[in-house]
Amino acid sequence: MDTNTDRRLVMVGMMIAIFLASFVAADFDLLQDVCVADLASGVKVNGFPCKSNVSTEDFFFAGLVNPGPTNNTFGSTISLAGVKQIPGLNTLGISMARVDYAPGGLNPPHTHPRATEIVYVLEGELDVGFITTENKLYAKIIKKGEIFTFPRGLLHYQRNIGNGPASAIASFNSQSPGTQREANALFAATPIVEDVVLTKTFQVGTKMVEKMRSRLAPK
Amino acid sequence: MDTNTDRRLVMVGMMIAIFLASFVAADFDLLQDVCVADLASGVKVNGFPCKSNVSTEDFFFAGLVNPGPTNNTFGSTISLAGVKQIPGLNTLGISMARVDYAPGGLNPPHTHPRATEIVYVLEGELDVGFITTENKLYAKIIKKGEIFTFPRGLLHYQRNIGNGPASAIASFNSQSPGTQREANALFAATPIVEDVVLTKTFQVGTKMVEKMRSRLAPK
Amino acid sequence: MDTNTDRRLVMVGMMIAIFLASFVAADFDLLQDVCVADLASGVKVNGFPCKSNVSTEDFFFAGLVNPGPTNNTFGSTISLAGVKQIPGLNTLGISMARVDYAPGGLNPPHTHPRATEIVYVLEGELDVGFITTENKLYAKIIKKGEIFTFPRGLLHYQRNIGNGPASAIASFNSQSPGTQREANALFAATPIVEDVVLTKTFQVGTKMVEKMRSRLAPK
Amino acid sequence: MDTNTDRRLVMVGMMIAIFLASFVAADFDLLQDVCVADLASGVKVNGFPCKSNVSTEDFFFAGLVNPGPTNNTFGSTISLAGVKQIPGLNTLGISMARVDYAPGGLNPPHTHPRATEIVYVLEGELDVGFITTENKLYAKIIKKGEIFTFPRGLLHYQRNIGNGPASAIASFNSQSPGTQREANALFAATPIVEDVVLTKTFQVGTKMVEKMRSRLAPK
Amino acid sequence: MDTNTDRRLVMVGMMIAIFLASFVAADFDLLQDVCVADLASGVKVNGFPCKSNVSTEDFFFAGLVNPGPTNNTFGSTISLAGVKQIPGLNTLGISMARVDYAPGGLNPPHTHPRATEIVYVLEGELDVGFITTENKLYAKIIKKGEIFTFPRGLLHYQRNIGNGPASAIASFNSQSPGTQREANALFAATPIVEDVVLTKTFQVGTKMVEKMRSRLAPK
Amino acid sequence: MDTNTDRRLVMVGMMIAIFLASFVAADFDLLQDVCVADLASGVKVNGFPCKSNVSTEDFFFAGLVNPGPTNNTFGSTISLAGVKQIPGLNTLGISMARVDYAPGGLNPPHTHPRATEIVYVLEGELDVGFITTENKLYAKIIKKGEIFTFPRGLLHYQRNIGNGPASAIASFNSQSPGTQREANALFAATPIVEDVVLTKTFQVGTKMVEKMRSRLAPK
Repeated sequence: MDTNTDRRLVMVGMMIAIFLASFVAADFDLLQDVCVADLASGVKVNGFPCKSNVSTEDFFFAGLVNPGPTNNTFGSTISLAGVKQIPGLNTLGISMARVDYAPGGLNPPHTHPRATEIVYVLEGELDVGFITTENKLYAKIIKKGEIFTFPRGLLHYQRNIGNGPASAIASFNSQSPGTQREANALFAATPIVEDVVLTKTFQVGTKMVEKMRSRLAPK
Repeated sequence: MDTNTDRRLVMVGMMIAIFLASFVAADFDLLQDVCVADLASGVKVNGFPCKSNVSTEDFFFAGLVNPGPTNNTFGSTISLAGVKQIPGLNTLGISMARVDYAPGGLNPPHTHPRATEIVYVLEGELDVGFITTENKLYAKIIKKGEIFTFPRGLLHYQRNIGNGPASAIASFNSQSPGTQREANALFAATPIVEDVVLTKTFQVGTKMVEKMRSRLAPK
Repeated sequence: MDTNTDRRLVMVGMMIAIFLASFVAADFDLLQDVCVADLASGVKVNGFPCKSNVSTEDFFFAGLVNPGPTNNTFGSTISLAGVKQIPGLNTLGISMARVDYAPGGLNPPHTHPRATEIVYVLEGELDVGFITTENKLYAKIIKKGEIFTFPRGLLHYQRNIGNGPASAIASFNSQSPGTQREANALFAATPIVEDVVLTKTFQVGTKMVEKMRSRLAPK
Repeated sequence: MDTNTDRRLVMVGMMIAIFLASFVAADFDLLQDVCVADLASGVKVNGFPCKSNVSTEDFFFAGLVNPGPTNNTFGSTISLAGVKQIPGLNTLGISMARVDYAPGGLNPPHTHPRATEIVYVLEGELDVGFITTENKLYAKIIKKGEIFTFPRGLLHYQRNIGNGPASAIASFNSQSPGTQREANALFAATPIVEDVVLTKTFQVGTKMVEKMRSRLAPK
Repeated sequence: MDTNTDRRLVMVGMMIAIFLASFVAADFDLLQDVCVADLASGVKVNGFPCKSNVSTEDFFFAGLVNPGPTNNTFGSTISLAGVKQIPGLNTLGISMARVDYAPGGLNPPHTHPRATEIVYVLEGELDVGFITTENKLYAKIIKKGEIFTFPRGLLHYQRNIGNGPASAIASFNSQSPGTQREANALFAATPIVEDVVLTKTFQVGTKMVEKMRSRLAPK
Repeated sequence: MDTNTDRRLVMVGMMIAIFLASFVAADFDLLQDVCVADLASGVKVNGFPCKSNVSTEDFFFAGLVNPGPTNNTFGSTISLAGVKQIPGLNTLGISMARVDYAPGGLNPPHTHPRATEIVYVLEGELDVGFITTENKLYAKIIKKGEIFTFPRGLLHYQRNIGNGPASAIASFNSQSPGTQREANALFAATPIVEDVVLTKTFQVGTKMVEKMRSRLAPK
């Protein structure tokens, strides 16, 4: 190998060094206050690794300003402001979401495996409720400016009972609360949950299970 | 007031002191290693207050030795060994359960809001699975001595697919994992979850909802 | 002592028993999903003991519906929806607040020792910022519907830079985030922080310290 | 440098990109429910980084089906089902183990620095016990199907007191409980713990220490 | 019952009320920053309930000023400054201790089930070490002003190797780290750990076990 | 492309492999007891990734032996022994510092966003205090060998009130407690906190703010 190649290898080494250095914080000290998610990192950890070039924008989000579309099966939509939308939330244990509801729209029963939720009504009137592991329902109608709590991990829902559209701000104590809509999980999972499980669980026939599956299939 | 009364009041004061002293640990130091649940305490806290007279029995349980009855709707039964059965588990973040299944018996889809679970098959052959918040099903058939994991807060189930009875040991990383069987929570809550929520959630008619309610009602 | 006294002592014993029994939960099982704060309990623990008669109202709060008064030194006011306002938040690790600002109003630099905060602008235009332990300021102007993050324990502030009143919803990942307004803590503590500490800290004279103290004194 | 080299450097850049991309998850969303250990990752963190291709097998383990060999110094063996055996346990805070005992076999006094343990007897009869920091022993004989608790960080042991082999399932609330057998740690460490420490600790002579060292040396 | 008795009962009721009121905080708000241990409370919880009359003294301790006596079996003594000595440490997760060593004195191998430790040498020269669960010893000689770390839950010791007395400050990240001296736990527990366990564990004869027991018995 | 280039690319690939291999642990098992910070890693996570070649030195620090310089604005200096000085502290949740004070020297009011602190006086006499979120000051004069507690996240300070130099050992329950000196944060941030915020916060004029800024500017 000639000296030309040597030089090239040195250059390549430098490229690698620069590339990897781009992972290295210019200011390691900032790590101690914040660990802004490096969403593009090739390394996956619990949450996200931290990026180096932190900016004010990492703590900001404008994606909840406008209502989301509600012309879907349930007449509701959720816009999440979690760690993927606000990288600065990484390691901080908090997130937000905006929920919009058409008249009669339902945010169907679901659980957040990793968070308690407080919901604040921006507009309209909602019927909200959660169910304990004792199968006890706590439900209430709440209006603009009022708030309600859904304890960690318990089934809950909201339904717009007003004549116009409704909207709410939800806050979670996790950077990534996760949402499991139980009906959809059971009837629209991939691969499917077998008929025999669903017929026994809901005490219905196979035909009914297939009907529910087709209606709850992702569109 | 005369001196007799004084003496009586002193005595009453002593009685109170003795009564309250009965709450006081003879050996406060033990608190540092264990905080055995005082299940009868008049004070309720997160978990349980600690009792004073700790004994070896507080860490022992024989209630999982025999199978539980499986002649019910789902053909399965769960015997819990949590903090209420083993007071010594208080503050320790762990518990166990035994699940018994009739042939074809199902431990229907449920979540534990506060725990991950590992299941170990004592006898028989089980079809087990969990569903992520992305509606992805991870399912597998497991046999005697094999184990499977259900991550915290996610929907999961087990079904006996063998010809005879089956049984399993489940371990949880919570002294009180909690169990929410979603179908029962939605169709058998008190007060009831309104029809309009359930028809929209499952995309079925009111009549169907009523049928499911009647079949899943507690017996 | 005569039998009369015996009877009386028995009665007193019963009184004590009844008094203490009033602490006893009717339904211990609910403890596992929620531990609603018993704000009136004679026992103080980290957070609050749990009460027995849980109701839907324990998870609800209407106190953020209307703006609070802003005719004060800073031209701003904070209405907290923490565990004392919503007993159901006990042990759940989350709370909310509404902040109202007069034109030019300032929520002065402060820390929350126990929480990260996300702020959502209900109305108006705010100049918001936080300062890291490296003395780096991250500041930005945010408008209606936009959100910004203040990492746990770091100094931050918001200022209304619009022409009319402004308001915001703040969410915290603690049932009781605590607020320390540093200027007020230093110049309006009881007992006072000695002059020699303040003159050296702020590099000003004693006279200046006294002036600041008088202006920041609680009214 | 010529254009050829440029092209080569671009290729090398692509190689690096591809190499690093191989770390990138196809489905980042799964991270929120599970973080399956990437046991082969070149990056070490607290626990393990997460891998990208999650499968059902990551949550399953068949290694506890059969008894382990017990023809050793203590007449017992431990088969662990922790995060290294079940990568899906990463971040989930739970693990299991199977312990087998020859007649008279002992699982000698040890601590788990990171876990409480519950033990369930599969077969046989065990004398089990733990010792508090007050040097109080809680010991009991337990039989098939019975369970006992060993609180986090405290010395404990099990001994087979039956005539035949015995076995037990142990569950831990850590993905990696760690085991420190104190006698072995002190008499078989590398480098050795000095004689003067051991003679004073156990109040024996140097000769005795050497004898114990030779008998407890790893084989 | 006559009116005298009524009056007395009312008085007794008042006494009880006053007694119990002494548990009630005058200033519930302080709970949010500190929860000073009520060491005399009749209610036991994980840690301690909080008292009402907080004073500066609750955060102060003078008990580490002077050396403790070292004329004992091991030639060392530990003075703890934990939550029982400094009630203000309750819920704060930190504590300190002073250790004094006679020449040749040993703080024998022990574990803290609930804390990592950093030791700072006040005076003298110490041989310090800890052993991992892989039976690897990390040992070093440290001098005045130097510090060393003992990771959570691992066996460790310190030995005075200087000619004069030595002393050290130990800091822990638990309000109540707990200390288990393994030799004493095994040979001086109540009730005793059976001979058969100890002979097998240490690979010595019964006679030797009895000798060690008698030498390590509490004096 | 010719075969020369191929060879070069293979070499480059090897270089990359070797580089990345340098991240790979020789002994993965140690991870379970300790995760010694790899301060030079190109990957940033919450805290630090773990390095592979752990040595006794990783748990040791001699940097607190000698006093630091105190000829500065405040007449005090802090020498930290955190995770960056003692890589072995990574994931262990503890650290130490030495503070030196000139006569009259002040460790000015500051908060640690992530830690409670206990301070132990090595030499001299200190006036120490903390302020709660209720603006209540707890202050006391402490002497050699005495200790005092500063609860997590609350403003606190120490001042040397003796005639000679003073020094103290501070222990924290975080590997990286962070320090925010509030006066400096507000008057010496980059970019600057706007005048209008500071004049309103401290109730002083713009001129005064500029004076304070110039005196508190980093030198």
